[in-house]
Amino acid sequence: MSANSIGSIFKVMSFGESHGRCVGVVIDGCPAGLKLDMVLIQKDLDRRRTGQNPELSSVRKEEDKVEILSGVFNGVTTGAPVCMLVWNKDTISEAYEQRRYTPRPGHADFTGFVKYGGFEDYRGGGRFSARNTAGFVIAGTIAKQLLERLNIEVLAHTTSIGKVSAGKASIEDIRANVPKNGVGCADPDAADKMAEAISKAKKGGDSLGGTIEGIAINLPVGLGEPIFENLDGELSKALFAIPAVKAVEFGSGFKGSTAFGSENNDEFMLNGGKVVTRTNNSGGILGGISDGMPIVVKIGFKPIASIPKKQTTVNLKDMKEVEISSMGRFDPCPIPRAIPIVEGMMAIVLCDFALRSHLIPPVLK
Amino acid sequence: MSANSIGSIFKVMSFGESHGRCVGVVIDGCPAGLKLDMVLIQKDLDRRRTGQNPELSSVRKEEDKVEILSGVFNGVTTGAPVCMLVWNKDTISEAYEQRRYTPRPGHADFTGFVKYGGFEDYRGGGRFSARNTAGFVIAGTIAKQLLERLNIEVLAHTTSIGKVSAGKASIEDIRANVPKNGVGCADPDAADKMAEAISKAKKGGDSLGGTIEGIAINLPVGLGEPIFENLDGELSKALFAIPAVKAVEFGSGFKGSTAFGSENNDEFMLNGGKVVTRTNNSGGILGGISDGMPIVVKIGFKPIASIPKKQTTVNLKDMKEVEISSMGRFDPCPIPRAIPIVEGMMAIVLCDFALRSHLIPPVLK
Amino acid sequence: MSANSIGSIFKVMSFGESHGRCVGVVIDGCPAGLKLDMVLIQKDLDRRRTGQNPELSSVRKEEDKVEILSGVFNGVTTGAPVCMLVWNKDTISEAYEQRRYTPRPGHADFTGFVKYGGFEDYRGGGRFSARNTAGFVIAGTIAKQLLERLNIEVLAHTTSIGKVSAGKASIEDIRANVPKNGVGCADPDAADKMAEAISKAKKGGDSLGGTIEGIAINLPVGLGEPIFENLDGELSKALFAIPAVKAVEFGSGFKGSTAFGSENNDEFMLNGGKVVTRTNNSGGILGGISDGMPIVVKIGFKPIASIPKKQTTVNLKDMKEVEISSMGRFDPCPIPRAIPIVEGMMAIVLCDFALRSHLIPPVLK
Amino acid sequence: MSANSIGSIFKVMSFGESHGRCVGVVIDGCPAGLKLDMVLIQKDLDRRRTGQNPELSSVRKEEDKVEILSGVFNGVTTGAPVCMLVWNKDTISEAYEQRRYTPRPGHADFTGFVKYGGFEDYRGGGRFSARNTAGFVIAGTIAKQLLERLNIEVLAHTTSIGKVSAGKASIEDIRANVPKNGVGCADPDAADKMAEAISKAKKGGDSLGGTIEGIAINLPVGLGEPIFENLDGELSKALFAIPAVKAVEFGSGFKGSTAFGSENNDEFMLNGGKVVTRTNNSGGILGGISDGMPIVVKIGFKPIASIPKKQTTVNLKDMKEVEISSMGRFDPCPIPRAIPIVEGMMAIVLCDFALRSHLIPPVLK
Repeated sequence: MSANSIGSIFKVMSFGESHGRCVGVVIDGCPAGLKLDMVLIQKDLDRRRTGQNPELSSVRKEEDKVEILSGVFNGVTTGAPVCMLVWNKDTISEAYEQRRYTPRPGHADFTGFVKYGGFEDYRGGGRFSARNTAGFVIAGTIAKQLLERLNIEVLAHTTSIGKVSAGKASIEDIRANVPKNGVGCADPDAADKMAEAISKAKKGGDSLGGTIEGIAINLPVGLGEPIFENLDGELSKALFAIPAVKAVEFGSGFKGSTAFGSENNDEFMLNGGKVVTRTNNSGGILGGISDGMPIVVKIGFKPIASIPKKQTTVNLKDMKEVEISSMGRFDPCPIPRAIPIVEGMMAIVLCDFALRSHLIPPVLK
Repeated sequence: MSANSIGSIFKVMSFGESHGRCVGVVIDGCPAGLKLDMVLIQKDLDRRRTGQNPELSSVRKEEDKVEILSGVFNGVTTGAPVCMLVWNKDTISEAYEQRRYTPRPGHADFTGFVKYGGFEDYRGGGRFSARNTAGFVIAGTIAKQLLERLNIEVLAHTTSIGKVSAGKASIEDIRANVPKNGVGCADPDAADKMAEAISKAKKGGDSLGGTIEGIAINLPVGLGEPIFENLDGELSKALFAIPAVKAVEFGSGFKGSTAFGSENNDEFMLNGGKVVTRTNNSGGILGGISDGMPIVVKIGFKPIASIPKKQTTVNLKDMKEVEISSMGRFDPCPIPRAIPIVEGMMAIVLCDFALRSHLIPPVLK
Repeated sequence: MSANSIGSIFKVMSFGESHGRCVGVVIDGCPAGLKLDMVLIQKDLDRRRTGQNPELSSVRKEEDKVEILSGVFNGVTTGAPVCMLVWNKDTISEAYEQRRYTPRPGHADFTGFVKYGGFEDYRGGGRFSARNTAGFVIAGTIAKQLLERLNIEVLAHTTSIGKVSAGKASIEDIRANVPKNGVGCADPDAADKMAEAISKAKKGGDSLGGTIEGIAINLPVGLGEPIFENLDGELSKALFAIPAVKAVEFGSGFKGSTAFGSENNDEFMLNGGKVVTRTNNSGGILGGISDGMPIVVKIGFKPIASIPKKQTTVNLKDMKEVEISSMGRFDPCPIPRAIPIVEGMMAIVLCDFALRSHLIPPVLK
Repeated sequence: MSANSIGSIFKVMSFGESHGRCVGVVIDGCPAGLKLDMVLIQKDLDRRRTGQNPELSSVRKEEDKVEILSGVFNGVTTGAPVCMLVWNKDTISEAYEQRRYTPRPGHADFTGFVKYGGFEDYRGGGRFSARNTAGFVIAGTIAKQLLERLNIEVLAHTTSIGKVSAGKASIEDIRANVPKNGVGCADPDAADKMAEAISKAKKGGDSLGGTIEGIAINLPVGLGEPIFENLDGELSKALFAIPAVKAVEFGSGFKGSTAFGSENNDEFMLNGGKVVTRTNNSGGILGGISDGMPIVVKIGFKPIASIPKKQTTVNLKDMKEVEISSMGRFDPCPIPRAIPIVEGMMAIVLCDFALRSHLIPPVLK
């Protein structure tokens, strides 16, 4: 019961606000002896950062330079809690004062106001801002480094933006193409159309959503702790912590629910002496436990809630209906920046289960 | 970190196996002073039970009479852990010895065997059996009773089985029609077609999946604990604990990811002096917190994995590919029996959050 | 946050009441593959049982035959939650109705009544009864079996009863003499005087307390998780869960607080190539972590609260001062029966830390 | 399972090292709407600080100015995680390099080295340093502010240093005298002798320990969550997290174990219509639950381990016995500075239980 923590052994606690001093994480349970690759962390933070392409994302300039506050000595983790953060710099908070009592449709303004009795830091979405995901990425990239020791790789790529869908992509396509375009798509043709769709939505004062596929490969059989701390359950919980996520499905997902058992079951077979499945409709998870096939999860993001277009809301001070339009530095689509966040959240969950299964020791050698 | 527990204050621990002595739960954190409605618990258990319609479900006869072991005095909860269980009776375990080393495709046989080193109780799915959901239902119905004090109602109904989808249904339709047919569907015409589809699949030695919609109404604004213990995240985790669940979406879900922000945002308006939203594409959750609108979640179930049709698998003892067919007392479709389980899991999560928000006191009056 | 659970990986949940149907435990996190020694469990339960010596303990006859409800298959743990219990048999509850509103001085009657709003099961101490420690012993003996694999041994012996103190005892004395006398004392002379003191107190309508020393030997260096889940902190918490415990000290304890640093520090030295300490004033714990020397903890028990002697109390119904005397089947001294409970609680904590340090795998070989 | 967190609702996570960049805390679960009294926090930090009296404490100059990183907006808590810290300034780390492999007797050097595989930050005790208690004090003083709303007051005072014991002290004595002398003692005569004893020990190249009594008054009946999350158990666990604590007893404690039940039981009586006890041998706790009388706990501290006097240890690099003497800026006695730490840890535990009992709401009014 710790609203701002996730994980059971590799325990990540998030703190910070969009327009406060910083956003950060404390990782309690990171094994001792990990030589941190700070370049990798910074690289993933940069992938998450705004301002890279003014057409596709917000123009807020966040330097997002990661700093270590504790738990690391001579560049190596000590077994003590690892605290890392990025300082907030380019914040403009005046606008938020004006719209203090007019919650944006589709945004947490309203629920946050009611839940925290008006004490919440409302500037820039405060605690609900996607800016907090900088901390997720820091912890996620540390988790990736630990998973690398087990040869586990976590990847994410954009499968759709608005009504534009990507074609099928191999692991190689994903590795090669995702970094090349501004939308994180492994299909170059679709990537162009996605970028165009975002630009168009932006020009229309509107926003788009989309879907991302998360993949983890080279997993051992056995990750996940039924019956309540399942691999799928914990992954979904972690993914729903990303702002704008509204749907999660594994393997054949909703489509699988329309098939016959004989079609959807993944038959077991041998491949080089190893038990594998012929298909992967289960998305790599059987009974809440990894079966050795790639984890495949599809995540649905709703369109960004803050839009310039006029919308009706209620002024909570005088309880009257009013019209607002969210002029500000908002992304028109959550997808491109969410790629490293999805990877990070998946890595955190997998790393935690790897520790629970004793695949990663408390002190690295 | 307790693989078999769920919840933070209303903490439900599950124990038991399909062919062991019993399946049960211990609830640690149930408020004192609740007069338990044992008739209601038994009624929900009966809804979950097999053998009611031999065409639509397994013929295993489970009496499933709930018994109280602790935490209740003179019919009222005491504040001590509430232990309840149902004894296992009609178990035939011989068949399982024969197929000990030939894991069923789509089933946890394989992952359970590897994870627990062959020590798992493999009879009837053992710890992975849907039979454990009897405990979920017991705890869920206790949670429902607590939510009733806040006027919160949790409902579930079948929205599709195989390729047959139900039409739109009102809350009144759901209340009235779901108990009337064997498939838990609020649309009578679709219900007939669903029953037919199940029968047909069964005759073909095959199985079906489907989708269930879970709904909770009359929620206050404010349930859910961002940023990691969100209402959507915890609901999804709880729902993925139900065997065969592979997909979860809230409100407009995956469909919402294809819309514009201006289409998908739910505008705020006033209704009798109360802030409500014009539409409910968010499924009642904004920023991980209930917004007062109905919670609407759609859950995708894969088809039952155990089917009479021949399928390939690997004999784990001699590591050879073999064919198996799962002759046994299996349901051809998980949906009908899952209705009270979905309600129960949702109720457990909502009850836990209501306690966290101090809406339910530790000692009832 | 689970009031009735202890441990983080080897998680023990207790349930049951003195005059309810049973007292039991569910262990979530017991490694798979442990062949349970049920004879050992029963033996420890018998050590805890009353009625063995009518002079020294209560005459309530509890058969206390342990039963397995789940988590064990063919005598071996499966990795699923292990539920075990003893049924309650010889309960006489009428007396408790009469004194419903007159809380016994020194007993939880009063605090339980207020905390649980009068809904608590008050019969025989209900949830507060020492009878619940039968469950502690069951879990504790399973933990002992796991520790045995690491060669760790947990012992407890009586160091004082009332004003009678035992002389120094070696590990060999403890092993040899504790089982021989009714008071669990390694010093035979003191044992006789202790038995005498108990008899005398009983005849006088009174009761006694005492102290027990718990010892764990052959520990590796490194158990304990600073800075809040220390070995000493978790042991003390576990020991304070035993009814009547009011004091806990490690090593030189309170006496050490009067010494100079140069006297109390344990100098390091080499012994057969191993780092040991010359003295053991730290009780085997430095910085919350085991240092490889024997854990030595002294536990102070207050005298049994229920006594035949007249005492003043307040009738909570009419709020008047009244006199009561606790006629019933009460032990005159908590010590003798507490020996296996102390061992059990220590074993539970040590086993949990051994799992956290990966010294015991999730699946035994 | 979070080694560096304490509490279940008012959850305090500690991070930082003695010679790292900072020591701090994140509080997850602090109610929204608390106007923080930063002066009070700074005052308690100053009480904990060294360098105030060069005779009685270390000469390391720590400014220890508290800073807020998150969770506070306009001086009021928001319901988001509260991160606060003090930066480290006056650190001299060279000395620690020299004695890297020669663990100080009585110190965590040895156990930390083995447990964390040599990766621990060994400078100045690193993660084991009492410097981390600055974070405890920050969180503790916030907890005190919350308890103040319930009129609960937490006090601590020195009851002995070395062989010098203080006389009995009333609450008024404690409030009046503790701040007046450098040793935190309510008995002015004893205070002088204690200061003298410390000076003498220091001159002799030695150190002293002592005892502190912690008291909490005006508690409601009902704090504490049996049977494992008892008020005494959780307090003891929290107190053992303070460096050098080796013993904890409540009320009559070890002395009570030598008394008769009729002597040690606290008879109930009426006082102004309220149920109280005539004596307070239970230290305000019955059955793990507060009984409304003052909580009284005595805490035994061992002498400071780091002393200039020569002691034997083992060089862990070449595994040879050597002599060391700890020249450095060490306190000769842990007691005086521990007063606000004891208060803080008690306040954290009590605040957590008050939240669990719904005595403090999640949003303050």
